[in-house]
Amino acid sequence: MAKRVTLREIAAKASVSYQTVSKVINHNADVSEETRQRVFAAIEEMNYTPNYTARSLRSQRSKTIGYTWEPSPPDQANPILDEFLQSMFRAAEKQGYYLLCFPYHAEIKQQLDVYKELIDSGRVDAFVLSIINYNDPCVNYLLERGFPFVGFGHLDDSTLFPNIDVDGGLGLHMAVDHILSRGHQKIAALAWPKDSRVGNQRLAGYIAAMQEAGIEILPEWIKRSIGTYEEGFKSTSQLLSLPESIRPSAFVALNDLMAIGAMDAIAQHGLKPGQDVLVTGFDDTPTARFLTPSLTSLRQPVSRIGETLIERLIIYLETGHYPQPFAELIPPELVIRESTSGIKYDLNS
Amino acid sequence: MAKRVTLREIAAKASVSYQTVSKVINHNADVSEETRQRVFAAIEEMNYTPNYTARSLRSQRSKTIGYTWEPSPPDQANPILDEFLQSMFRAAEKQGYYLLCFPYHAEIKQQLDVYKELIDSGRVDAFVLSIINYNDPCVNYLLERGFPFVGFGHLDDSTLFPNIDVDGGLGLHMAVDHILSRGHQKIAALAWPKDSRVGNQRLAGYIAAMQEAGIEILPEWIKRSIGTYEEGFKSTSQLLSLPESIRPSAFVALNDLMAIGAMDAIAQHGLKPGQDVLVTGFDDTPTARFLTPSLTSLRQPVSRIGETLIERLIIYLETGHYPQPFAELIPPELVIRESTSGIKYDLNS
Repeated sequence: MAKRVTLREIAAKASVSYQTVSKVINHNADVSEETRQRVFAAIEEMNYTPNYTARSLRSQRSKTIGYTWEPSPPDQANPILDEFLQSMFRAAEKQGYYLLCFPYHAEIKQQLDVYKELIDSGRVDAFVLSIINYNDPCVNYLLERGFPFVGFGHLDDSTLFPNIDVDGGLGLHMAVDHILSRGHQKIAALAWPKDSRVGNQRLAGYIAAMQEAGIEILPEWIKRSIGTYEEGFKSTSQLLSLPESIRPSAFVALNDLMAIGAMDAIAQHGLKPGQDVLVTGFDDTPTARFLTPSLTSLRQPVSRIGETLIERLIIYLETGHYPQPFAELIPPELVIRESTSGIKYDLNS
Repeated sequence: MAKRVTLREIAAKASVSYQTVSKVINHNADVSEETRQRVFAAIEEMNYTPNYTARSLRSQRSKTIGYTWEPSPPDQANPILDEFLQSMFRAAEKQGYYLLCFPYHAEIKQQLDVYKELIDSGRVDAFVLSIINYNDPCVNYLLERGFPFVGFGHLDDSTLFPNIDVDGGLGLHMAVDHILSRGHQKIAALAWPKDSRVGNQRLAGYIAAMQEAGIEILPEWIKRSIGTYEEGFKSTSQLLSLPESIRPSAFVALNDLMAIGAMDAIAQHGLKPGQDVLVTGFDDTPTARFLTPSLTSLRQPVSRIGETLIERLIIYLETGHYPQPFAELIPPELVIRESTSGIKYDLNS
C-alpha cells in the first residue's frame, strides 16, 4: 500500500484547516460549496482514501471499539458508568462488535500514545470519547488521522465529529424555572471552573433562565469551584453570610455532590434545606433519593445515549456514512424531590 | 493440529472428575499424589497439551482479557465497578494487555455462547470472572475447556481455579464484634437468599461471631431477601414489631442499600437509628457518608484486588504457572460512622 496521505497534507493543499477536511469527508453540511469543491479537488489530486473506508475494505477488521473514561475520585462513584457501558456493550454485541477498554491517563502524551498504539496495532476500528475538553488533543489527533469516533459530548462547533450530548443548559434552565415557580428569585449557581466545557454549557442555561425571568444575576451568585462536597459546602456557607438583601434563597448545583454540600451548609446555618432554602443537583446519583431531604436533580437518559452512539458508529463503520442527526442534543429529566418542595422563604420578614 | 483432547476425556481415562484434572494441570496441592500420577499418565497417554500452553506457543496471542459483570439495577450504582475496572486496566496496560468487555446475559445459554465465541475467535487469552455462583455453568465451561481465568470470588472448594476474594465472613464478624462492644446483644442479620454464595459466606461470619460471644441466635433474627432498600425496610419493620424480649436492637445488613432501608424503618418506628438501634452495612457505597446518621460499613480493597488478579493472570499466561497464593482471602475494612456510635438502648427500661 502506498504511503498514506494525511488530512494535514490535504488541508495544506486546499488551504483550509484539517478540521474542515474532516467535515467534508464526513459529509457535514457546515462547509461552503466552494470550500467543499476545493477540498475534493485536493483529495482527488493526492489520491487520498479516507481511513475508515480503507479499513472497511480490508478483510482484517477488529470489530472492536475502544473506550476510556476519567476515573471517579475515591469516595465517589460514577453514577452513570455502569449503565453507559452496559448499553454500549449490548448495542455492539447485536452487530458482532465488542468494546475494548483502556486506562485513562491524565498526562496527555501518555494518553495519545495509547490511542496511537490501539490504532496502529489494528486493535480497534473506532473510538467512543466521553472526555472532550476545549481544544482536546485526543479529538484533534483522531480528526487529523481521520480515524472514526463518536462523542458523548460536543464542542462549541458540534459539526466537527458525530456526537450525542445531554442538553445541560436546558437542564439548568428547567431547574431555575422550577425554583422560580416555587416563588424563589434569589438563585445562586454552584458552578465549575471556567475551563470546564460541560460546566459552561450547563451554566449558560442558568444565566438564560434568569435573564428570561428578568432577574439580574449578582456577580456573587455564581461560585466556581471543583465539584466536590467540600467546595459545595464552602461556597454555600459564604453565600449564606451575605447581607439579607442579596442572600440567595436557592442554589442550583452543577452536580449532586455540590448540592449535598450545599444542603449540609444550609442546615448548619440553622435553616431548613428544602423549606427555607431550595437546592437542585445534577446527575440524579443513587444517593439523591436517600438524603434528608431527598434531592431534586437532573437525570441523563444514559442508556439511550450509549445505545444510539454505538448503533450510529457501527453504521458509519459498515457504510462509510454517519446517519442523521450528525449532532444530537437530548434533554435531561428533572426529578423533583423534597429539596425543592418547600414554602417560600422570605428573607426580609 | 490434531483434534484437541478435552479435559473430560482425560478425566474419563483417569476415572476422576474434570475438576480434578484441572487441578492437576494447574499444579494445585489439593490432589493426592496417587491421583496426580494417574492423571499425568492419562495426559501422557492421550498426548494432551493444556490449552494455555498451546496458546502461548502460538504466535497469535491476543493479549486481551475478557470481562463481564452483572449490571446494577436502575437507581443503584455499582459502588466498586469504576475502581475495579480502572485497577485492572492499569495493571494490564503495564504488560501490554487490554480488557475486552462484553455484555452480561441472565440467560445462561446466551452467556455461554459469548464465552465460546470469544475463545473460538481468539479474541481473548483469558477471562476475569466476578459472578461466581454455586455450580456455575461459566466456571464449569471454562474449567472443562481448560481455558485460563481468575475469579474475584471463590467457591467452597477454593482450589478449583485461581482466585482472590474479600473475606465477607470476617467482615460480618467484625461488624458483630463492634456492635457487641457497644453493649448490644440482640443483633439481627438482613441476609440474602439461600442460593447466594456471597451472601452465605458473609452470613457465616455473623453466626460465628454470635456463637463465639455465647449469644443464641433466634430464628426470627435472620431475615433473607433480595438486597434492596425496600426489603431492608420491610424486614426491619417486621423485626421491630416483635415482643420486647426478643426484639433486635441492632441490624447487620449484607449491603448498604438494605441498611439504608433499615435506618428508615427504625426512624419510622419512632426510634433513633445509631442511638436506639444500631445498623451496619456492607460495601461502603458513596451514599454511606452522606446519610443521616452516616452509615458504618465494610469497605473492600478493590484496587488491590483488581491489580493483583491481573498481575497474576498475566504471569500465568506468560509462564504457564499461576503464582502463589493460588487462592487468597483479603479482609475488608470496617469504616465506623454514626449509625453505630450510639449509646446502649435498653429495651426493657
